[in-house]
Amino acid sequence: MLSVDEAISALLQGAERLVGSESCELIDALGRTLSTELVATIDVPPADNSAMDGYALRHADWPGEQTALPVKQRITAGSVPAALEPGTAARIFTGAEVPAGADTVVMQEHCQGAPDAVYIHKLPALGANIRRRGQDITQGQRVLSAGRRLRPQDLGLAASLGFASVEVCRRLKVAILSTGDELVEPGEPAGPGQIYNSNRFIMKGLLSGWGFEVIDLGIARDRPEAVRERLTRAAERADVVITSGGVSVGEEDHVKDVVDELGSLDLWRIAIKPGKPFAFGRILAKPFIGLPGNPVSVFVTLLVIARPYLLACQGAADAGLQALPARAAFSKKGSAREDYLRVRTTDRGLELFPNQSSGVLFSACWGDGFVRQKVGEEIRQGGMVDYLPFTSFT
Amino acid sequence: MLSVDEAISALLQGAERLVGSESCELIDALGRTLSTELVATIDVPPADNSAMDGYALRHADWPGEQTALPVKQRITAGSVPAALEPGTAARIFTGAEVPAGADTVVMQEHCQGAPDAVYIHKLPALGANIRRRGQDITQGQRVLSAGRRLRPQDLGLAASLGFASVEVCRRLKVAILSTGDELVEPGEPAGPGQIYNSNRFIMKGLLSGWGFEVIDLGIARDRPEAVRERLTRAAERADVVITSGGVSVGEEDHVKDVVDELGSLDLWRIAIKPGKPFAFGRILAKPFIGLPGNPVSVFVTLLVIARPYLLACQGAADAGLQALPARAAFSKKGSAREDYLRVRTTDRGLELFPNQSSGVLFSACWGDGFVRQKVGEEIRQGGMVDYLPFTSFT
Repeated sequence: MLSVDEAISALLQGAERLVGSESCELIDALGRTLSTELVATIDVPPADNSAMDGYALRHADWPGEQTALPVKQRITAGSVPAALEPGTAARIFTGAEVPAGADTVVMQEHCQGAPDAVYIHKLPALGANIRRRGQDITQGQRVLSAGRRLRPQDLGLAASLGFASVEVCRRLKVAILSTGDELVEPGEPAGPGQIYNSNRFIMKGLLSGWGFEVIDLGIARDRPEAVRERLTRAAERADVVITSGGVSVGEEDHVKDVVDELGSLDLWRIAIKPGKPFAFGRILAKPFIGLPGNPVSVFVTLLVIARPYLLACQGAADAGLQALPARAAFSKKGSAREDYLRVRTTDRGLELFPNQSSGVLFSACWGDGFVRQKVGEEIRQGGMVDYLPFTSFT
Repeated sequence: MLSVDEAISALLQGAERLVGSESCELIDALGRTLSTELVATIDVPPADNSAMDGYALRHADWPGEQTALPVKQRITAGSVPAALEPGTAARIFTGAEVPAGADTVVMQEHCQGAPDAVYIHKLPALGANIRRRGQDITQGQRVLSAGRRLRPQDLGLAASLGFASVEVCRRLKVAILSTGDELVEPGEPAGPGQIYNSNRFIMKGLLSGWGFEVIDLGIARDRPEAVRERLTRAAERADVVITSGGVSVGEEDHVKDVVDELGSLDLWRIAIKPGKPFAFGRILAKPFIGLPGNPVSVFVTLLVIARPYLLACQGAADAGLQALPARAAFSKKGSAREDYLRVRTTDRGLELFPNQSSGVLFSACWGDGFVRQKVGEEIRQGGMVDYLPFTSFT
């Protein structure tokens, strides 16, 4: 049996970026993955500028608080200043370029304006209130690495450097397929013995949230021809194929045989709960991931096991998840598998959803994250545990 | 001076849902806000079903491990079983409906099949391996509240209940406008005194990440007519108007006067760092939020102060942010304002970006979250602090 970490590592070892690069308008690049590092072509800010509304002067020119300095220019943000005449001050506004010859800005609250002159009541330290050229970024600095998935602040940074577009990885195309004769789509009438297909919605939601292009192939019935036809189509169109259900060794599970026939398949025994069975293989040389059929197992294995692999296929660097220490408001014995317990944050600590069955999807809706219970770990009420908010799996 | 909590509360007190409802296909509903609570119209699962591949029987009928039970039917997932004949077993597969009369499922690993019969070597407890009708959800149960922003697992749950569409709040329309003569758009040449507009990208990225429809009005120059024209257009088209820059009381800041003229404006003194000045008002009866001009201040005030208000305008329930306790790898004196320090998680604890100036956007790209340093709080290396991952502001 593989540990969760071993399973993730094994998948990552065989992972490579599966997509080419393309140019993307910066304003549309939220969530896209940089394909090449971003290097600053300019200094930010591009010139010394004022951090305040006030007056710019040469520090040594201060005549004392009783004497006015002549004011010879007014510099607004976006305008181009003339060099400061010795023995004068310049009216200056936040963000405006500091004129050559000035070395200090005095905030207006410490000044008293007079016609064409200013009294400076309180002189700050030399260099005060000036944002220096290049204090944020210097030209040539590598600011964002290849593989970075762009967040709003990253877009802001790229914009501040003048980039109107960026080179990104093409979106990874992931085909999803649910299998099972018992499944019907919501909106259709469900007869006796039938249940609604929820895995499709969980898979599509998670995958599109990670920025992938999802090719939704619906439901394949439990017949080898139906499964073969859908999987072939999936592998032709997508970079990666994912199914839910049908990969255990039961007589009614045809996915295994079909994938074996079209490529190769390994059933993995991973010490994760909920979550078995998990399968990995190839269909027509495209990576294939077979998730379990139960909705919570789909949720957990897609987040924990498949996500790092899929991000690698997308060309994205994944920093890895850092569990946060938190207090448990429950007790639970350990088991032989790493357990991803659905919990909710409360004032008393993390509360456990009472029914942790892999069939009970409501646990994941009720909860805001997992407690990762390591193999054999005993959780005691009031003790510290590893907490993974759902929002950290972005 | 308002505390951060007071500012958030004051905004929320005047907040109301500003958008109507509409129907949305479930498959497209990721991130949308439920406008009415979702009530289960069926039980999930709809009938008792098998949690295993194995054999269903009446517990009392077990003849001992030496005697075979006749197998009279084979029940696959999705098929409709006949009632179990007394003294017989049924071959059954995972997810298949348990036949009337059976009360226990034996996993196949504990059985030995014979032609039309089965030896059961090990009888589990009465009721074992059966997922009970309604064990996940019972008919009439309120499963998702109005105001829930739909996550992948919520879509899965709604699907499992048969909903093909859900009633959601129309997307909140938020108009954004940057102000300043010094601003140019990336891609254009930046002359002396000019800088690239980064706030537009930060604002659009954050707002669209929260599911809002962003109306991007570009840059308004520092002239009252230009600002008036843009703000009027913004208020006509959007539910909420947000600007960055131009709301301080400087001579070159025209936003304040124009908003005052078109509606009303209050400058708020909030004890937040980075983050002042912050303004709130109305333009043509539409809520107006004036953010500061510095990119990190825009980032922080939009996340911390504006986000709860905007979610309320969208009709979304916000659980509020729960800071997580984490160890600081740095020391820092407290100040008179609540400080949102950009930090990064490391093995030694949270590391502080060395330059916390509000002009240095790179701090937010380098970091993975904030340390919230309360007013007057002294942070000591190795001590515990309030950590807010950026991913928690979803």
